[in-house]
Amino acid sequence: MYFPSLAKLIEEFEKMPGIGHKTAVRLAFYILSISDDAAREFAQAVVDAKSRIKCCSVCQDLTDTDPCQVCSNPKRDRSVICVVENPRDVIAMEKTREYTGLYHVLHGVISPMDDKGPEDIKIKELLSRIDENIKEVIMATNPTVEGEATAMYISRLLKPMGVKVTRIAHGLPVGADLEYADEVTLTRALEGRREI
Amino acid sequence: MYFPSLAKLIEEFEKMPGIGHKTAVRLAFYILSISDDAAREFAQAVVDAKSRIKCCSVCQDLTDTDPCQVCSNPKRDRSVICVVENPRDVIAMEKTREYTGLYHVLHGVISPMDDKGPEDIKIKELLSRIDENIKEVIMATNPTVEGEATAMYISRLLKPMGVKVTRIAHGLPVGADLEYADEVTLTRALEGRREI
Repeated sequence: MYFPSLAKLIEEFEKMPGIGHKTAVRLAFYILSISDDAAREFAQAVVDAKSRIKCCSVCQDLTDTDPCQVCSNPKRDRSVICVVENPRDVIAMEKTREYTGLYHVLHGVISPMDDKGPEDIKIKELLSRIDENIKEVIMATNPTVEGEATAMYISRLLKPMGVKVTRIAHGLPVGADLEYADEVTLTRALEGRREI
Repeated sequence: MYFPSLAKLIEEFEKMPGIGHKTAVRLAFYILSISDDAAREFAQAVVDAKSRIKCCSVCQDLTDTDPCQVCSNPKRDRSVICVVENPRDVIAMEKTREYTGLYHVLHGVISPMDDKGPEDIKIKELLSRIDENIKEVIMATNPTVEGEATAMYISRLLKPMGVKVTRIAHGLPVGADLEYADEVTLTRALEGRREI
């Protein structure tokens, strides 16, 4: 139906997460509709991003400098490490403008179902960062089965090293309605209640 | 929040139709997660598609050969031209496997709201194709206000040239429910009724 070069472009778009056949076709036709320069600029942005962005040797976050902007910022609190699953979580945390410590990106979670063990994520690199200067490690993996298991696994490794390990709170999101909250979230919200 | 090369990539994805900020971020991180080779292959597919695919000099459809596969196919019926708005419509028509004639792609519709007049779409190229061999021109623009107006405009130009001009039928889509059909569609379905 499509000529080879168009079919190839559609196929490339289809590989992307959340992009089905119809969207891939729409995006491919969008590429055909823009100017040659705009298409080249887009292709260059892909190659540039890929070649310039590497993992920070300290926190494993994606960065174009090594160490990354957070790790090399003298204003950050070097006694706290927040452990997250992936680089997008770092961006979500940074958007709060509340957290001033360092990060550690695991690049995944322990998930036997997906054949991912502790050695497949950046736990070794986290342990090597723990010294007497680190006062607290905040486990901010997602509140999923795998995220919880990974947080538990890492906290058991960290505690013998004499570091305080905390877990971010689970409860009702701001603006939510008790009536529509699921049971597990509500149970967590009750368990985590604090005096006001 | 993002380093320049990542911000640039996100911005490029945001320009695409139907891609908002969150999807653009997800797609950009997808690019970072794939291998260098896969990213280069994707960038190359964009550049290749853009450089190889041109408009057919006869029917104005997108093609990587000139004239296109349809125009150069000796088995196609050269006495009928189906006029559509854009190249995706040709693909939709081809999928029916019922139509064996030629196409003409307008690359848009007459739309005063968007400052698009008759000279901005490929009407001139259509008129230059009309000769004694053409028996029928099927207007298959979309059943929108602009599509109808464009079909009417072109049919008025074609009729004095002695060519039969037809419009594709409007009515209930197959599998639809009368109860949920809009009034305009239902009116068209009644108007277009045929003896069984």
